[in-house]
Amino acid sequence: MLISQLVDISGTPAATIKYYVREGLLPAGEREGGNRTSYDESHAHRLRLIRAMLEVGKLSVSSVAQVLAALDDSSKPLAETFEVAQNALSRDAVSEVSPPSAESVERVDAVVDRAGWLNCGDNVGRGIVAQAIDGFARSGHPVPDHYLDQYAAAAALVAEADLDAVGAIADAARRTELMVVGTVLGDSLSLGLRRIAQAHRTNQRKL
Amino acid sequence: MLISQLVDISGTPAATIKYYVREGLLPAGEREGGNRTSYDESHAHRLRLIRAMLEVGKLSVSSVAQVLAALDDSSKPLAETFEVAQNALSRDAVSEVSPPSAESVERVDAVVDRAGWLNCGDNVGRGIVAQAIDGFARSGHPVPDHYLDQYAAAAALVAEADLDAVGAIADAARRTELMVVGTVLGDSLSLGLRRIAQAHRTNQRKL
Repeated sequence: MLISQLVDISGTPAATIKYYVREGLLPAGEREGGNRTSYDESHAHRLRLIRAMLEVGKLSVSSVAQVLAALDDSSKPLAETFEVAQNALSRDAVSEVSPPSAESVERVDAVVDRAGWLNCGDNVGRGIVAQAIDGFARSGHPVPDHYLDQYAAAAALVAEADLDAVGAIADAARRTELMVVGTVLGDSLSLGLRRIAQAHRTNQRKL
Repeated sequence: MLISQLVDISGTPAATIKYYVREGLLPAGEREGGNRTSYDESHAHRLRLIRAMLEVGKLSVSSVAQVLAALDDSSKPLAETFEVAQNALSRDAVSEVSPPSAESVERVDAVVDRAGWLNCGDNVGRGIVAQAIDGFARSGHPVPDHYLDQYAAAAALVAEADLDAVGAIADAARRTELMVVGTVLGDSLSLGLRRIAQAHRTNQRKL
């Protein structure tokens, strides 16, 4: 298809498409006679993924490039691609102002252990959780272990739903697409449902 | 205590403390002879709450003022104070670019219904969840009901932990403080633990 058709299908302006090609996010189209360049379904598909990452995931162009490189490296197992996507998508959640305390990181590892999960190694979530534990303590409301364990039980439910959804997709590109979209939108689902559930519980308890 | 002591205790510069007083966030100290103004424990306490909202919750000064006004209105039941805090704290999560579709809002109400929760009325979470459902659909990955229900089950666990923690506190100001701090930091806990649980599940399934 011509670039004008790709613009129509994707809702992305031609100048933006050319920018993505220059930045290496999108493979160049096939040069045909004269000024004509032709694109195919794979371009339309990749454009959707790029826009999902930029708009839904609010990733920078360079983070999108990292995720796409991991996706295109077919030697990488899914778990590794997932890790690259998770790291790119979680940058905002990690405070670079103050690193988490060693005690809190230890507490996260203990939660992971009690949940029966594999060692979380350098998963981006480890620092995020440890920083949250530090934040509670600094605000004068240190969190007990059973609070963290209940959050971990909830995270296990959510991750099971996520992996069921991702595992049901055979195509690698679409699977990564759902990982990216689902990582970001799943956070919103959790956040929004937590607000509603809190309101329900507050009313129910007549606090 | 003198303002210099309040500065020491709270780690907040004197100019900032005076700014909070001018903006109505912090009650003025008691004027004593000459240039001296005296502050007490309640000032130190309120300062901690203000800073938790500004720094942890990333609220604007005017949102902090709203939450504090709700807190100080002792005629308000806790559920209402909670709602004001939730709304103030969730502003970033609500996209004002595109309102949620009517179908998605209906789906949220159906999820709430199946979860056995009270009608969520105009809870801020309703729009957040509906927008996330729209986002999944737009990205070509519409979410099935059982996915949403599993997220709701997780949110119920988390809200139970939150309300257990809040309900255990007798003092109203400290309870609101935990609500505010817990709403923000609990989102981080969920987000971080979800990343770790996803990595665990991905490895476990050898995807």
